[in-house]
Amino acid sequence: MSHRRTFLKQIALGSAALVTSGFPNILFKKKKERLGVALVGLGYYSTDLLAPALQLTQHCYLAGIVTGSPEKAARWQKQYGLRDKNIYDYSNFDRIADNPDIDVVYVVLPPSMHREYTVRAANAGKHVWCEKPMALTVAECDDMIEACAVNRVKLAIGYRMQHEPNTRQIIDYRRNQTFGKVKLISVAAGYFDPRTDHWKQNRAMGGGAMFDMGVYPLNAARYVTGEEPIAVVAQEKTTRPEIYTRADETTLFQLEFPSGALANCATSLGMSMNYLYVTAERGWYKLEPFQSYSGIQGSASDGTLLNQKIPNQQARQMDDDARAILDDTPLLVPGEEGWLDIRVVEAIHLSAKEGRRVLMD
Amino acid sequence: MSHRRTFLKQIALGSAALVTSGFPNILFKKKKERLGVALVGLGYYSTDLLAPALQLTQHCYLAGIVTGSPEKAARWQKQYGLRDKNIYDYSNFDRIADNPDIDVVYVVLPPSMHREYTVRAANAGKHVWCEKPMALTVAECDDMIEACAVNRVKLAIGYRMQHEPNTRQIIDYRRNQTFGKVKLISVAAGYFDPRTDHWKQNRAMGGGAMFDMGVYPLNAARYVTGEEPIAVVAQEKTTRPEIYTRADETTLFQLEFPSGALANCATSLGMSMNYLYVTAERGWYKLEPFQSYSGIQGSASDGTLLNQKIPNQQARQMDDDARAILDDTPLLVPGEEGWLDIRVVEAIHLSAKEGRRVLMD
Repeated sequence: MSHRRTFLKQIALGSAALVTSGFPNILFKKKKERLGVALVGLGYYSTDLLAPALQLTQHCYLAGIVTGSPEKAARWQKQYGLRDKNIYDYSNFDRIADNPDIDVVYVVLPPSMHREYTVRAANAGKHVWCEKPMALTVAECDDMIEACAVNRVKLAIGYRMQHEPNTRQIIDYRRNQTFGKVKLISVAAGYFDPRTDHWKQNRAMGGGAMFDMGVYPLNAARYVTGEEPIAVVAQEKTTRPEIYTRADETTLFQLEFPSGALANCATSLGMSMNYLYVTAERGWYKLEPFQSYSGIQGSASDGTLLNQKIPNQQARQMDDDARAILDDTPLLVPGEEGWLDIRVVEAIHLSAKEGRRVLMD
Repeated sequence: MSHRRTFLKQIALGSAALVTSGFPNILFKKKKERLGVALVGLGYYSTDLLAPALQLTQHCYLAGIVTGSPEKAARWQKQYGLRDKNIYDYSNFDRIADNPDIDVVYVVLPPSMHREYTVRAANAGKHVWCEKPMALTVAECDDMIEACAVNRVKLAIGYRMQHEPNTRQIIDYRRNQTFGKVKLISVAAGYFDPRTDHWKQNRAMGGGAMFDMGVYPLNAARYVTGEEPIAVVAQEKTTRPEIYTRADETTLFQLEFPSGALANCATSLGMSMNYLYVTAERGWYKLEPFQSYSGIQGSASDGTLLNQKIPNQQARQMDDDARAILDDTPLLVPGEEGWLDIRVVEAIHLSAKEGRRVLMD
């Protein structure tokens, strides 16, 4: 599709930033080849992963930050040469609507704040990238999707694995039925978190193993099967009950899919584990690790080694999402994908709490 | 221990065959260096695995058979040069008591017949080796253990993996805490069974995935942790409901252990899978396959390759068990080990049926 046609299509669809920014901006936006990204929340993931990755992207760049810490603001501004006007705090954040430097707001806050900042960013006319887990409840996800739809901005969820080439390969195995139908998935993701009073130990803020790491096995079970679960059974356990009073340390969950495929999943903040095994009709394939910053690798029963390498997972994800915005094409992982996971997380929490199998509506 | 001392110890303990066979046999038995084994039930496992393996053993040999098929009797007698008097059918089987050629009766019948033939063999004064699953219920296992105790014969269960060196290695990892405490086990064993009306499709005969293959993951979870489960959750599923009307095609089960270790287990007669993955405090180790006639292999997070090879698993198992009888030392896998599994299988069946977590007594 030519730039001209893309442009017309954007007009026809009343696409996002164009509408909210008015005509002068249309001309400006049209010329943009890279999107300006503002990171909201400058914790570990922004600092150590996203900001460095943004230095490696082709289609976007770090344009601004939103932080409650003047000290962090000063440090980041110096390190990344950010313009004064692109530094926001949480009270003046909504003024970002008037800042043409910022095309995308990337929400990297604790999950309990995702809804609020996604809605505010959308209302400011900015595209939104939101980290996983998308939010705490399906109702919050609904609000986020609606706010982005109403404001005609795109909403991407930061499931970087779906952008990763070895992961794409196993998704293709299912699509092409390379090894026949998927029968069983065994998948686990966890790490040992020595912290005792971080928000990750508090479910009300989006902590606990299931919210924090469990969405990886869950999302994997969904992308490996290409199906939505019809029933869920889950068990929550802890070996540190004095710490895990407000969130799950370890959750096992089992998913049933319409085709009869099953998933045996585990997640934990108490142990390190990272593997995805797929048993299919005519073979198997696996990724181990399947979710790791430092690279994904695996193999398949036909002898294939799954070892495609990319320089940086977060850069790939952000470039894919930036490209989709620039070209106005569908996102690989839109808000709906987060919504579908949180729907299952709600069922998992319910199953663990009530000790019973939960049927999905 | 010298032969003399072993002999005295056997007398002191009133060991098995000695008591039932009377004095002339004592002298005979003492001189034995190899035990005569009679296979009961000449199906696939006896024909293709055990009989060939017995040709490779050092401490035992194929001495007799028990079969209801005169045709099979004739074929086996010819193939293995068996003496006429060592061929039994199910009606004259009890006369085996008077046959000094037979030291061990190996029960390789459908599991619903294990109790009867184990008790009859024990009452005939013979040591018993019994295939897995040990029996259908704990009550049957009780009868079997009691009959062997009363008759002072040994009872071994045919869990060959516990004799396999790579499996021994991972058991040692736990004993030595090489990688710290075991935290999570993910283990699956299954194959695709194309049959539709074999006893393996009938739980009343000991069929279904859980009885047939599920005892491997279950036994593995127990030997990997060295603990007994305190709670069980299980789900039974099928993608061939027209066939699996009387047994489970696929069962997922989750075990909780006193230390907090968890096991995520799967078994199936509908799909091929075979792996054992152990997450420990300070690393991981895995066997893949962990249960396969053709060899076990794996690796550990410290770079160790687990690839010890043995010529034949069944020969190793039978030699170990024969050695324990000849030396009157403890069996590696006594009846109690089968009992402990069947206790959990009962809980798994109950959990799947009632859709709830079952606490072990």
